[in-house]
Amino acid sequence: MITVSIVGASGYTGRELIKILLKHPQVKIAHLTSETYKGKRISELHKGPAGFIDKRFEKLNIDKVAQDSDLIFLALPHGKSQKPVAEFFKKGKKVIDLSADYRLKDKSLYKRWYGLEHSYPRLLQRAVYGLPEIYKEEIKNSSLVANPGCYPTGVILGVAPLLAHGLGDGNSIIADAKSGVSGAGRRLDSAYYFSECHENLTAYNVGKHRHIPEIEQELSKISKEKITISFTPHLVPMDRGILSTIYLNFEGKVSLDRIWTVYKKYYRKAPFVKILPKATFPEVKNIVETNFCEIGLMVDKRTNRIIIITTIDNLVKGASGQAVQNMNLMFGFKETEGLL
Amino acid sequence: MITVSIVGASGYTGRELIKILLKHPQVKIAHLTSETYKGKRISELHKGPAGFIDKRFEKLNIDKVAQDSDLIFLALPHGKSQKPVAEFFKKGKKVIDLSADYRLKDKSLYKRWYGLEHSYPRLLQRAVYGLPEIYKEEIKNSSLVANPGCYPTGVILGVAPLLAHGLGDGNSIIADAKSGVSGAGRRLDSAYYFSECHENLTAYNVGKHRHIPEIEQELSKISKEKITISFTPHLVPMDRGILSTIYLNFEGKVSLDRIWTVYKKYYRKAPFVKILPKATFPEVKNIVETNFCEIGLMVDKRTNRIIIITTIDNLVKGASGQAVQNMNLMFGFKETEGLL
Amino acid sequence: MITVSIVGASGYTGRELIKILLKHPQVKIAHLTSETYKGKRISELHKGPAGFIDKRFEKLNIDKVAQDSDLIFLALPHGKSQKPVAEFFKKGKKVIDLSADYRLKDKSLYKRWYGLEHSYPRLLQRAVYGLPEIYKEEIKNSSLVANPGCYPTGVILGVAPLLAHGLGDGNSIIADAKSGVSGAGRRLDSAYYFSECHENLTAYNVGKHRHIPEIEQELSKISKEKITISFTPHLVPMDRGILSTIYLNFEGKVSLDRIWTVYKKYYRKAPFVKILPKATFPEVKNIVETNFCEIGLMVDKRTNRIIIITTIDNLVKGASGQAVQNMNLMFGFKETEGLL
Amino acid sequence: MITVSIVGASGYTGRELIKILLKHPQVKIAHLTSETYKGKRISELHKGPAGFIDKRFEKLNIDKVAQDSDLIFLALPHGKSQKPVAEFFKKGKKVIDLSADYRLKDKSLYKRWYGLEHSYPRLLQRAVYGLPEIYKEEIKNSSLVANPGCYPTGVILGVAPLLAHGLGDGNSIIADAKSGVSGAGRRLDSAYYFSECHENLTAYNVGKHRHIPEIEQELSKISKEKITISFTPHLVPMDRGILSTIYLNFEGKVSLDRIWTVYKKYYRKAPFVKILPKATFPEVKNIVETNFCEIGLMVDKRTNRIIIITTIDNLVKGASGQAVQNMNLMFGFKETEGLL
Repeated sequence: MITVSIVGASGYTGRELIKILLKHPQVKIAHLTSETYKGKRISELHKGPAGFIDKRFEKLNIDKVAQDSDLIFLALPHGKSQKPVAEFFKKGKKVIDLSADYRLKDKSLYKRWYGLEHSYPRLLQRAVYGLPEIYKEEIKNSSLVANPGCYPTGVILGVAPLLAHGLGDGNSIIADAKSGVSGAGRRLDSAYYFSECHENLTAYNVGKHRHIPEIEQELSKISKEKITISFTPHLVPMDRGILSTIYLNFEGKVSLDRIWTVYKKYYRKAPFVKILPKATFPEVKNIVETNFCEIGLMVDKRTNRIIIITTIDNLVKGASGQAVQNMNLMFGFKETEGLL
Repeated sequence: MITVSIVGASGYTGRELIKILLKHPQVKIAHLTSETYKGKRISELHKGPAGFIDKRFEKLNIDKVAQDSDLIFLALPHGKSQKPVAEFFKKGKKVIDLSADYRLKDKSLYKRWYGLEHSYPRLLQRAVYGLPEIYKEEIKNSSLVANPGCYPTGVILGVAPLLAHGLGDGNSIIADAKSGVSGAGRRLDSAYYFSECHENLTAYNVGKHRHIPEIEQELSKISKEKITISFTPHLVPMDRGILSTIYLNFEGKVSLDRIWTVYKKYYRKAPFVKILPKATFPEVKNIVETNFCEIGLMVDKRTNRIIIITTIDNLVKGASGQAVQNMNLMFGFKETEGLL
Repeated sequence: MITVSIVGASGYTGRELIKILLKHPQVKIAHLTSETYKGKRISELHKGPAGFIDKRFEKLNIDKVAQDSDLIFLALPHGKSQKPVAEFFKKGKKVIDLSADYRLKDKSLYKRWYGLEHSYPRLLQRAVYGLPEIYKEEIKNSSLVANPGCYPTGVILGVAPLLAHGLGDGNSIIADAKSGVSGAGRRLDSAYYFSECHENLTAYNVGKHRHIPEIEQELSKISKEKITISFTPHLVPMDRGILSTIYLNFEGKVSLDRIWTVYKKYYRKAPFVKILPKATFPEVKNIVETNFCEIGLMVDKRTNRIIIITTIDNLVKGASGQAVQNMNLMFGFKETEGLL
Repeated sequence: MITVSIVGASGYTGRELIKILLKHPQVKIAHLTSETYKGKRISELHKGPAGFIDKRFEKLNIDKVAQDSDLIFLALPHGKSQKPVAEFFKKGKKVIDLSADYRLKDKSLYKRWYGLEHSYPRLLQRAVYGLPEIYKEEIKNSSLVANPGCYPTGVILGVAPLLAHGLGDGNSIIADAKSGVSGAGRRLDSAYYFSECHENLTAYNVGKHRHIPEIEQELSKISKEKITISFTPHLVPMDRGILSTIYLNFEGKVSLDRIWTVYKKYYRKAPFVKILPKATFPEVKNIVETNFCEIGLMVDKRTNRIIIITTIDNLVKGASGQAVQNMNLMFGFKETEGLL
């Protein structure tokens, strides 16, 4: 039994984290902080089961949170996490950061894409990228996990087996991703109004989304060469879920049987990745409110392309569920504890 | 003032056609046929303004419809249109066929993708592909127009200017299209239930959709070389609209300025195509219930790709609105009559 | 041909007004004002056809707007309309005010429900309540029309024929109304976010909604006795439309035939009210984007209640369409001009 | 640990039951039957976690199911349950029937509202109405539980405390209920298509819904006088959830404080009923995918009415969750086991 706190618990990510942790048999929640909503009852803001906790948002007090917690989750906006993560880490606490602040190893990339200096470059090197299907052992031994972005989770899981086996041309990757509106979080922006999103569909940040360097960093590591990709996110009128349609060229002959076997083997120890039967494709509905990633595969011989379609719930496997999966690994719990 | 009839008027396409024609100042509706709903009041089936017509569905009587109509629209399922189109044509009537039956010039392609023999191969050669932005003069002089499919309209309009100018590699085209549920029509299939589509998202017919040969036929004509494309349709939880995200590789240097100017010029006489300001992208909401196609353009120098995003309303520019645009051209009305 | 301006043209009501007026053959638009968006292109804010106007939002200049306009529509928030309405009126202009500022004849009621003093109580008496089905002649001769609220339109039209004939107990009226989210307008409030409204349903302002005194004022006038009603509004996850389910007790025997005939007769000259066949009920989809009000009637003999269900589009018959209907009457155009 | 089977497991109710039971620590699933889908994998039909069971639908074999099960849930269409319930009961099995077949004590009422004879009138008398908040002791000792309908659950829980205390006029009750589309089940009917339900809202079976006699039977029992109510169901464009707005007249003075205290006390041992703070109202989102019923209360002194608003998830507290709650009581498990 461990005690955890959530710093920045008022957003959708915080809400999902509370909801999952309330059902986790090994966890007790100590503090839930929010600068915006401090003093307010959780249940006044968080609809549904996450509101079934009798606590109030508190102003962040680093010392108090550190003292009362074995693990701290931070679900703060990008840029706001740098300092508290460093402080908790210095106090010897285990930390899982759900922001982008500790994901990019190269601080110049962080500056270019996020417009911010990184004040803790050495700590950056100690952070482990929290994608358990790829870094399970590192996560087990880590005190600082940088929880992946939602889009990167869906895209990286979709192509990692190919790149790890040198199959297909990594630099031909086009990832066309479609996300539900909860991915935008709770920011006050009229673009996310019901009357604006409903019966609408749009692409955004075309070729410029901040998840691009994160995806490229990880794909480059896996394939051991520099990978550059096209990535286009879209906003779809649903609340939750991401479906990523990924295209990749291959030379010569590649059979679907071969590819499918590679994926099955690569993910044989990954309890949350499901490889669908050949040439069948996932639906968002199957994985909403779960920590699963479903993957469908197809080889298009007309165009010499492999088409991979992956689905995740952006708030679970794309954020809070994955954070709990990382917690399970860091504390030696069963990887699926609280997540099935 | 002309008199028109709609054969197969009970589907969503028929409904939209009625709705548009009721507002068209040059048109009177004679017959509306439906084998399934014959005898039923239009208003019992068609919700909204299309129901504001005091008529009943009739069983199709070729002679009677031909006698009373200057033009016949056919909105029948694929395969069902071959014969009545031929019969109306033989009687000297003008015909706009909204099915796929007269779109593919190569009857062996029709057989391969639709599983049917074509019984009127000579008539196939006389049909004009009804995309007014490309075949305006041919349509004006035609008696038989094969109205394009919804996905092909969005994709062809998106890349025609590039291919016509030999810009980019036509065989690198990947079209990732997302459609509202009305595109599935009124077929009785539990896949299109509210509880199945809502909060869901899925790809379907990956690499196998019947609109592929139609798109390839037209792109090959425009580029004067054989084009093979990747095309992936998706089902999005909204009623109407298609957004197509199209990727195309280029060699050497291509500036967005240049591309944008090419598009503006190519569509300078196309009243329903809007080229958006550079590096801005269309939203489905802007064109729903209109006959417009909006196009956004971007050049991604990191990956040497041109990204084109187009939006149409699948039931208007993707079907019934385009049919009326074709009618306007065939009868010498203003191209935009009844459509603004 | 008249020239009109819209003061406060950036909201959803303003957007619909622009959209309708652009198709109206007798109207030219002069000025569109918005304090928040002044200088911005209309098309940058208003999605869809309303954005197809090549104008920018201007800061309000009373003199200039008055000089260039035969009629001014005001679509400002409640409280903000009092003064400009008075100024335009003083300059001899015709005015249609879409806010609540000139709807309540009793300024103490205005103060109680809106928390504001009314500075123009005499002008209040000159304003005509713009429900054409009831005040057609007064509207024709008026220079100042107070356009009804959306809920009051649906409820008043639903029970006026009964109260005018002394049928049923006016003080037993319960109106349970359900509205789409666009009714909330474009206010920046996280309650109207997609992720909050979608897959949700709630009642709000139970027994306290500001439309209650407006409904009671009008029902009392029609029935010539003081009427008090129960009114409960609900927020439904759709963009547009209001469905009002209204219950009213009767004593003795009342047949549906009798009631139905009363409604048909009462609305025989009302081109936008449709009485549905006996014991059939309206759907929102039938009237969305139209100026129609559909009414379904039932007599429940088990409970001695008449049940009336009405539907309107909150942005059309409940706001901008009704305003144009009023304009048509004020200027001697055909009542349905631009609205069919 | 008990073993259960579900007869008629292919509908939405069956799906939710599987999903809940898979997480229940005291239950093992033996058979899942479906005449329509026999032989098909559960995961091919049931999207989401309910599909995470490695079983196939079987044809119903009464002997085999009885032999292998301690308890049988029946989720068959109305009329189809009569016989198998009787057979399982005769074999000494515990049974929870989710259809309406054993809910109405008066077989003539069953005939009038369902159009069917009841072949097991004596068994009807032995069935306990499975609303645990009212019949907890009877359920504990029962072998045959008739699980309540979804609308009755929301309405009865909403007014039971008042009627039990003789507060207000039971015969003035008007229940205006709004349900998500999943309430219609998986019947093949084009009325429940996405394109028909989305952006739509309608009332149906006004004054004629089959849940009326069920509600009246139970309210009459509670109040010890014959109660007749008005009940109007509506179809709302969301997947899950019912919100019921209930109006009831009172004579003399009734304070909200008094009413609220009555409710708190009445439900003090009901773990799934939440009485909200005075004059605040529930939202569907708060209880979706949970077994909770939330109740908001208001006294409207202007009209001498009590307004009660309740929310439930139609598939959980309105069906499968309540069935599991009943199972927990019948087998001596904790009432909330598997449901929190």
